Amino acid sequence: MPVDARLNFTLQEYASRLHKTRQAMADREIDTLIVVDPSNLAWLSGYDGWSFYTHQCLIVPQHGNPLWWGRGIDAPGAIRTTWLDTEDILSYPDHFVQSDSCHPMDHLATTLIEMGLATGRIGVEMENYYFSAAAYQSLLKHLPDAALIDATARVNWQRLIKSEQEIEYMRGAARIVEAMHEHIYQIIEPGMKKSDLAAEIFATGIRGVDEYWGDYPAIVPLLPTGIDATAAHLTWDDSLLRAGDITFFEIAGCHKRYHCPLSRTISLGDPPEKYRKAEEAVLDGMQSALGYAKPGKLVEDVAIAFFDTLEKHGFQKDNRTGYAIGLSYPPDWGERTISLRRGDKTEWQAGMTFHFMPALWLDDGGLEITESIVITDSGYQRLTNVEQCLRIKPV
Amino acid sequence: MPVDARLNFTLQEYASRLHKTRQAMADREIDTLIVVDPSNLAWLSGYDGWSFYTHQCLIVPQHGNPLWWGRGIDAPGAIRTTWLDTEDILSYPDHFVQSDSCHPMDHLATTLIEMGLATGRIGVEMENYYFSAAAYQSLLKHLPDAALIDATARVNWQRLIKSEQEIEYMRGAARIVEAMHEHIYQIIEPGMKKSDLAAEIFATGIRGVDEYWGDYPAIVPLLPTGIDATAAHLTWDDSLLRAGDITFFEIAGCHKRYHCPLSRTISLGDPPEKYRKAEEAVLDGMQSALGYAKPGKLVEDVAIAFFDTLEKHGFQKDNRTGYAIGLSYPPDWGERTISLRRGDKTEWQAGMTFHFMPALWLDDGGLEITESIVITDSGYQRLTNVEQCLRIKPV
Repeated sequence: MPVDARLNFTLQEYASRLHKTRQAMADREIDTLIVVDPSNLAWLSGYDGWSFYTHQCLIVPQHGNPLWWGRGIDAPGAIRTTWLDTEDILSYPDHFVQSDSCHPMDHLATTLIEMGLATGRIGVEMENYYFSAAAYQSLLKHLPDAALIDATARVNWQRLIKSEQEIEYMRGAARIVEAMHEHIYQIIEPGMKKSDLAAEIFATGIRGVDEYWGDYPAIVPLLPTGIDATAAHLTWDDSLLRAGDITFFEIAGCHKRYHCPLSRTISLGDPPEKYRKAEEAVLDGMQSALGYAKPGKLVEDVAIAFFDTLEKHGFQKDNRTGYAIGLSYPPDWGERTISLRRGDKTEWQAGMTFHFMPALWLDDGGLEITESIVITDSGYQRLTNVEQCLRIKPV
Repeated sequence: MPVDARLNFTLQEYASRLHKTRQAMADREIDTLIVVDPSNLAWLSGYDGWSFYTHQCLIVPQHGNPLWWGRGIDAPGAIRTTWLDTEDILSYPDHFVQSDSCHPMDHLATTLIEMGLATGRIGVEMENYYFSAAAYQSLLKHLPDAALIDATARVNWQRLIKSEQEIEYMRGAARIVEAMHEHIYQIIEPGMKKSDLAAEIFATGIRGVDEYWGDYPAIVPLLPTGIDATAAHLTWDDSLLRAGDITFFEIAGCHKRYHCPLSRTISLGDPPEKYRKAEEAVLDGMQSALGYAKPGKLVEDVAIAFFDTLEKHGFQKDNRTGYAIGLSYPPDWGERTISLRRGDKTEWQAGMTFHFMPALWLDDGGLEITESIVITDSGYQRLTNVEQCLRIKPV
């Protein structure tokens, strides 16, 4: 490791992550794992940079050092941010970038052949933004002596139970998202441009709180108002807020790539009765559901309790109502492991972290009151402390 | 089109884009095109939302209406933002999301079969963040009667020459990035936290200028200092700026998803002689190079002129020195068509827009002075007006 690399975790923690990953590889008899998910790459090596728009990976052989491989101009970033030896940082020439005559994975295949890693079972993350169909085809073509094995989310599942240091970073992110919601509530008012409000949200989030500086969340703020809030993922424009508007804020604090998402909804003036009923249903459902968020219970228990309570209140919801969180890169701050829905039979264990996301999208708007949570030995703890209700800003 | 959909372009412009796309399909005898690139999806249909982290596409048959297909909770967003008829907005149930037992593309295949579109030649964007290896495998498996054809960047290339309205949005983005650089120069000083500076950059960019409200750029601000600037894509932390620091700012303004990237470098106090020489080389190279940015010349002419001039000054550069720009979504603000490098024999035409990116990464830091440009009938125009030099902030 270069002496000035700034690692977010101890070398012991990285070694333990590598060990867990190699066990998971052994379970599937994977000889070499090609890790392209930027979150997995960071978790294993420390690598951090907005370079995932070109192909890069961590090569993890069952024995020997893992190797970073990426674009030439990004190799200095790997030297600066990982614990890897400089000689284990490999790169490809720039003519491979976004070319229609060759693919960076052609170069990776050659590299694997030269290293004697081009036989046996090679794990690849088949379902990932950063492993395109063309990337797969290149490896298939150029590694005829290897069997390519689907290793989607093999590393992600190793990340499920967080270390103390990881939870500490998430608590930092929690302080940040608290500050973001507080600031929104303070400044929101009729006549304000949505884009100005978005600007304030960004600034508060990136400035951070005390020693917890703000990193960029993997999703930009979502802040749809009124009928736009019937849609789950709209961003903003320069339309003006008006008295009576109901807006949800789906945002996250982020510190050292660790996320704490939290949504709240604000009504400018008194909301219609329908939203009061929706609020009551969501809060009642949340309370019932989180009673099942503890070791020994299953992930689906939380979801089912929520859906059942919601139904008693006359609301239907069939989409997933939360997901694991932690380290992430765009375009998703979810961990892509557990999903809070029927059929997810993962058992809760202490140290798991998730975003409980009981959003209701109605016919004329949306309501989001969510919580990010860590499982403890006996139950759960909220990571944040923000008033749990449909917030009303007097106008 | 629902009456309240807010389209950024006229229906005529969308119709002309669809027509061009179908011609490009016909050139390759493609019967149906599956468009997953969010930029292409937006360009053709108007669709806008941060929903690309789950699978979605525009189905473009050679005849008949194009159809939006995506996650159920995002269908209302398609209704809100596209010119498509509501009946042409299709969705899949939530249990397909991030599941290890089924894939959303299984559902798309069924949809295509039901519509009678599951035979013939189906174009797919093989090299795209949003067309994973697993997505491809699902379609291969469930569409046995179709031939899947690589249609990577077929739509992107149709976007190369911008309409007047598109250039107008990019001029808006240019005003924004000018304001961002001006603000950085005003506030940067020794003792400032990098994260506080990043917060100000975000806020200025999202607030926008006059009627040009700020949309989120497809890449977050890159602002590495000193030795960190030997790496191309590092972001920020809370380290403090010091007198003597040299920092480059690779940022973009964005308006209605149209980008104007622009990089500048600021030295806190006088820079070392080496950086003066690098500045001179870059500016001289830029001037020589841009003489070739005009109709009749080739893209590579610009790159070669730049590399040659740089060499005369004693600097070597072999990575690409720019790329087409316009409409984009994370993780890349490039258009993924032309690359300014040897071998790109595309002819310049009026209305093309690109980011000329003559960055130099040295052994102890980096220098970026770049320009975003539109090709005119007789030459080129800079989109922005920001002092073209290594800027010095007195300390």
